[in-house]
Amino acid sequence: MTTQEILIRANEAKTALTLADTARKNQALHRMADALEKPDHRARILEANQRDLEAAKGTISEVMLDRLMLNETRIAGMADGIREVVALEDPVGKVLSETVRPNGMTIRKTAVPMGVIAIIYESRPNVTSDAAALAIKSGNVCVLRGGKEAWQTCHAIVEALQIGLEEAGMPREAVSLIEDTTRVSANELMTAEGFVDLLIPRGGKGLIRSCVEHATVPCIQTGTGICHVYVDRAADPAMALQIVNNGKTSRPSVCNALEVCLVHREAAAAFLPALKETLCEKRQKEGKQPVELRLDAEAAKIIPGTPAKEADFDTEFLDYILGVKIVDSLEEAIEHINRHSTGHSEAIVTADQDAARQFTAAVDSAAVYVNVSTRFTDGGEFGLGCEMGISTQKLHARGPMGLAELCTYKYVICGDGQIR
Amino acid sequence: MTTQEILIRANEAKTALTLADTARKNQALHRMADALEKPDHRARILEANQRDLEAAKGTISEVMLDRLMLNETRIAGMADGIREVVALEDPVGKVLSETVRPNGMTIRKTAVPMGVIAIIYESRPNVTSDAAALAIKSGNVCVLRGGKEAWQTCHAIVEALQIGLEEAGMPREAVSLIEDTTRVSANELMTAEGFVDLLIPRGGKGLIRSCVEHATVPCIQTGTGICHVYVDRAADPAMALQIVNNGKTSRPSVCNALEVCLVHREAAAAFLPALKETLCEKRQKEGKQPVELRLDAEAAKIIPGTPAKEADFDTEFLDYILGVKIVDSLEEAIEHINRHSTGHSEAIVTADQDAARQFTAAVDSAAVYVNVSTRFTDGGEFGLGCEMGISTQKLHARGPMGLAELCTYKYVICGDGQIR
Repeated sequence: MTTQEILIRANEAKTALTLADTARKNQALHRMADALEKPDHRARILEANQRDLEAAKGTISEVMLDRLMLNETRIAGMADGIREVVALEDPVGKVLSETVRPNGMTIRKTAVPMGVIAIIYESRPNVTSDAAALAIKSGNVCVLRGGKEAWQTCHAIVEALQIGLEEAGMPREAVSLIEDTTRVSANELMTAEGFVDLLIPRGGKGLIRSCVEHATVPCIQTGTGICHVYVDRAADPAMALQIVNNGKTSRPSVCNALEVCLVHREAAAAFLPALKETLCEKRQKEGKQPVELRLDAEAAKIIPGTPAKEADFDTEFLDYILGVKIVDSLEEAIEHINRHSTGHSEAIVTADQDAARQFTAAVDSAAVYVNVSTRFTDGGEFGLGCEMGISTQKLHARGPMGLAELCTYKYVICGDGQIR
Repeated sequence: MTTQEILIRANEAKTALTLADTARKNQALHRMADALEKPDHRARILEANQRDLEAAKGTISEVMLDRLMLNETRIAGMADGIREVVALEDPVGKVLSETVRPNGMTIRKTAVPMGVIAIIYESRPNVTSDAAALAIKSGNVCVLRGGKEAWQTCHAIVEALQIGLEEAGMPREAVSLIEDTTRVSANELMTAEGFVDLLIPRGGKGLIRSCVEHATVPCIQTGTGICHVYVDRAADPAMALQIVNNGKTSRPSVCNALEVCLVHREAAAAFLPALKETLCEKRQKEGKQPVELRLDAEAAKIIPGTPAKEADFDTEFLDYILGVKIVDSLEEAIEHINRHSTGHSEAIVTADQDAARQFTAAVDSAAVYVNVSTRFTDGGEFGLGCEMGISTQKLHARGPMGLAELCTYKYVICGDGQIR
């Protein structure tokens, strides 16, 4: 089917999803999870995955190949992921506010599904089932456009999910996969006005950039994180070290990992040598990859390291690299962050309540931490139970997007003949 | 100043606005209102308005000239409009949700200003002061781009507002007016990434269309309304007549006015003659402009009128014209509305609770009414106390946008050294 045909069918399924109650949606999720684990479906998914892996070998990195690879355990994990969504609260129909106006009419602001959510993603097959489950639970039709490396795997997964949907009496078009994996289909989704109610690009800078420039449908930018920590002069040095170490080294490839450490001049002489010891020397001794510190001129006077280029403070390294810069004041730290951050997550380490207040008020990012690692910006860690992505924009959703963020609202007004 | 220079200065004023507390913002609003009414400022505004009016004569309609015209009473009205905003609740700093996680960290989802809000509008000078007041109260910097017909008036108004801001110790750049009134500046605003946090186009279809196509900054579409009423077979005929009459004739030029009336076949034989009598003959007798009914083929079998063309069901007439169509079922009414509506406001008239439930659940518009006129879709009527426009999109804000909708949120997370 062409992308246009898929979108037309997806839109025809909208009303059924909007009207489905919680029990019906949960039943569909159970059937979808079961379908993934049925021996014949599972075999077909693994076969497809094998074909994808063979075609991709040599064209993508080992890390990417591992992300692409499925086995029985991973498929069981995907099914369990769907089942976990069953337990989450249904956001649809929630009355967000209710007022009775002087003329007697009642106004209820009510959460409703967006309609059709399109997701452009890359080579992780599990995004297919995760995104489908979150969309269904929030009453949305889901149109998936995966990367070409994972297409056969995604196709087999979607076929299984669709069988589950049908068994539960829901339209199979509630979840569909775009067949074309070239840029053409991505552009079609970006400009499918009237057919796509929300587009979520999950991918690298290039994809996000393309959406900002070309999308005429509503779009939420996700996932780019140049996250900062600011070690204040009133920081507990041990706590600061622990938070910087955790932010940088616990999982450098994710968007909530630290990329830049700002240190107050008064704290620098004691803190920087300890930082170097923990992130570089200690890790080397333990046989772990040491962190490369990229130092501004002032920091370089205190410890040895790579001299930082200007671009290093505007780069999402996603690697064992940390920019380090000395600042003269809290204000300079805030200004640096608001100038260089992608609006994802920033932290201050300080025992000074006033500094903490000023930092959280003035830093313009989705998540602002006081004495906590930036690594907590995550739907699960925030208690949302799930996550469709982390929004770095200010419109509609900011930070981790759970089920509520996949909904919009409508006003339902009831009366007995009121006119104006 | 160039548009770029104005945007740079606006961004420099952001932090001061974000950090201003309610008392300071209210003081600024009082000074802004007072400044408008100071005799010398008022005289300068009226002089500027005179120059605008003379230049516009013959180039725009009488209605537009009247909208552009200011006098002492209208200026006093603008000042009072600003003072009314003082009384509204400050949305900034409101804790939208608060959780303590098992590891002891506290997560507060907190309402914060957007930052810089740009508004593109046309020839109504009062939008200048209204928009500025709403922006200031919600902690936002406001960049205004008015139409060329009203530019001198808007410029004099903004000068007065800026003096008020300075008197209150706020940066004058909190409110500014773009000097260029050509398309160039509109396009600059649409693509000013990093400088405009929210763009609100207030104007006709052409402007909205241009924003959808060209904007790379976050944007909220406002104001186009093809509003429908569906007269169900279980409708109270007198109530239906009253609601249709009010929706069409009380103020046809506004976006919440009715454009299309759908009538259930079983109700049509009795309802349509009454509709014609009230909207056409009775109005004619009273010396009022009669409504032109544009009838589909089935309606034309029952009453005389203009035959409807297909385009009549996709047109925002903003005039004494009403499309009339007979439908065979509630489902057909819902389907017609979801296909032809702009997502603004729709109403059902019915005594059947099930029909009402189905209609409100399935109609995909910002405001869905049961036995109430669509004319109530308005910030004031909804109890928001004000309105920056009526959003017809689903992302971020839907329906009337009050102060809360001019804010985003951030997560503020506090702990004592939590790492992941």
